[in-house]
Amino acid sequence: MIQSRRIAIYGVGLIGGSVALALRAAGFEGSIVGFGRRESELTRAVALGVIDRYSTDAAEVAAQADLHLLCVPVLAMESVLAAIAPACGEQAIISDVGSTKQSVIEAAVRVFGALPAGFVPAHPIAGTERTGVAAAFPELYRERLAILTPAETSSEAAVREVEQLWRACGARTIRMAADHHDDVLAATSHLPHMLAFALVDMLATRPDHDEIFMYAAGGFRDFTRIASSSPEMWRDIALANRAAVSGNLDALIARLQTLRQAIDAGDATEIESRFRRAKSARDEYVALTEGRGDA
Amino acid sequence: MIQSRRIAIYGVGLIGGSVALALRAAGFEGSIVGFGRRESELTRAVALGVIDRYSTDAAEVAAQADLHLLCVPVLAMESVLAAIAPACGEQAIISDVGSTKQSVIEAAVRVFGALPAGFVPAHPIAGTERTGVAAAFPELYRERLAILTPAETSSEAAVREVEQLWRACGARTIRMAADHHDDVLAATSHLPHMLAFALVDMLATRPDHDEIFMYAAGGFRDFTRIASSSPEMWRDIALANRAAVSGNLDALIARLQTLRQAIDAGDATEIESRFRRAKSARDEYVALTEGRGDA
Repeated sequence: MIQSRRIAIYGVGLIGGSVALALRAAGFEGSIVGFGRRESELTRAVALGVIDRYSTDAAEVAAQADLHLLCVPVLAMESVLAAIAPACGEQAIISDVGSTKQSVIEAAVRVFGALPAGFVPAHPIAGTERTGVAAAFPELYRERLAILTPAETSSEAAVREVEQLWRACGARTIRMAADHHDDVLAATSHLPHMLAFALVDMLATRPDHDEIFMYAAGGFRDFTRIASSSPEMWRDIALANRAAVSGNLDALIARLQTLRQAIDAGDATEIESRFRRAKSARDEYVALTEGRGDA
Repeated sequence: MIQSRRIAIYGVGLIGGSVALALRAAGFEGSIVGFGRRESELTRAVALGVIDRYSTDAAEVAAQADLHLLCVPVLAMESVLAAIAPACGEQAIISDVGSTKQSVIEAAVRVFGALPAGFVPAHPIAGTERTGVAAAFPELYRERLAILTPAETSSEAAVREVEQLWRACGARTIRMAADHHDDVLAATSHLPHMLAFALVDMLATRPDHDEIFMYAAGGFRDFTRIASSSPEMWRDIALANRAAVSGNLDALIARLQTLRQAIDAGDATEIESRFRRAKSARDEYVALTEGRGDA
């Protein structure tokens, strides 16, 4: 279990709320204070037993905590960091759950002048397409992976405390360089979200869109599930991880163009070999993750 | 229930096998004869109680049936039709389950000289990523939609018999022009499959592909589920519905290119408005299909 007795969660929605619930379920008996912009969500979070109390003033929340967990959209990290910086002591442990890590590190450097030794960037790979504290549940992180991207200057004690936090939530932890994290996640998470949003947007703007959706089958429902994710959160991720997202989008567009050429040319062998390689990789991935919590 | 007492199923896999099981579950007491290329699958189909008997000679199967249901990949339809044509009487009812309808109609016209009055092209919108007769189950078509695309020259009695067949399997039926079917399905089914195959293929050919898949989250599993579908079946669909698939691929590539430009330009408003439109359409689609069998 973690050493800290006073936790602040900035952004008490699905992600932040589920951390609070998981820590409580794991036996954490210290205080959990929430920060947010919308008081209605915060009063609901207290009513649901997710947090003990709240404030819409981030500095006020920061003064009541030793471990600070930022769960706001990645482009909102900097303003929250700026608000809490004066209230964070030398010993403060600060972490986040952002889906992009270099952008959060850059924001912290702008706010603090350099990355504080107690700052441990992290990303739990978990979530659903739902949003808001009412969607939070304590098992969200069970058997999931939490990636930590500490810098060379990070305090090992702080890194271990953040590892303990995620393990208490049921997650496995791994350490990785921030730029590698951003590239890998661009490929496996950010790119699929861009594709799902782009496909559904394209269909939604067809004149016959009502009919189109009426004939969509079960596979379409799974394929487009992530297009029901938060538009603000994914707008931020697209911008915060711009280079890696653009690079992966370019690579995919090139693949789609050569696939289209193969279809036009009636090149059955080429088409089948691509589909076969994909099926084989996807089947291997499923076999690899069987028994994992997200399986 | 259907009038026919003798049914032939050409291609006894997930789709054809599930029709046979659904008809039996609905009380069909006539005979069901299967055709296939692989004797091992056919003996398994008999052992599982899916069909009564089989032959690897399509003409031999055709001689034992009044209602013929073709469940082979769309580009294999023509050779099966050619094989059974001599054995099909004037009164024969012939239908299929192909995901593309114009290509099947063209194949029938090539074989018979003109579309026979008893030929009723159809497409049940159902399936899973699994294949083979062992994956068949009687509920596959329950609450799903079966689209019939009869021609003006089709016999109304034959159309009604095929409607009865799908209703006996638990499906709802609808009639539609073949070209409209092909366009709508290209958008909602064929294009998503092309995208899923292309994405997984792109990731699978990265040098770090093992690591890539290790960090993929739950959303990735859903998004790529259809990339585990049959490569041969989808190769055929891509080629059989070439014009509509290419057109939809072009439209999507254009969308992805403008999205990429918006990301490069840091145009947060444009990005968010696209994502918001997509989320809204996808949420509406889910609300529309709540309570449907594929929900």
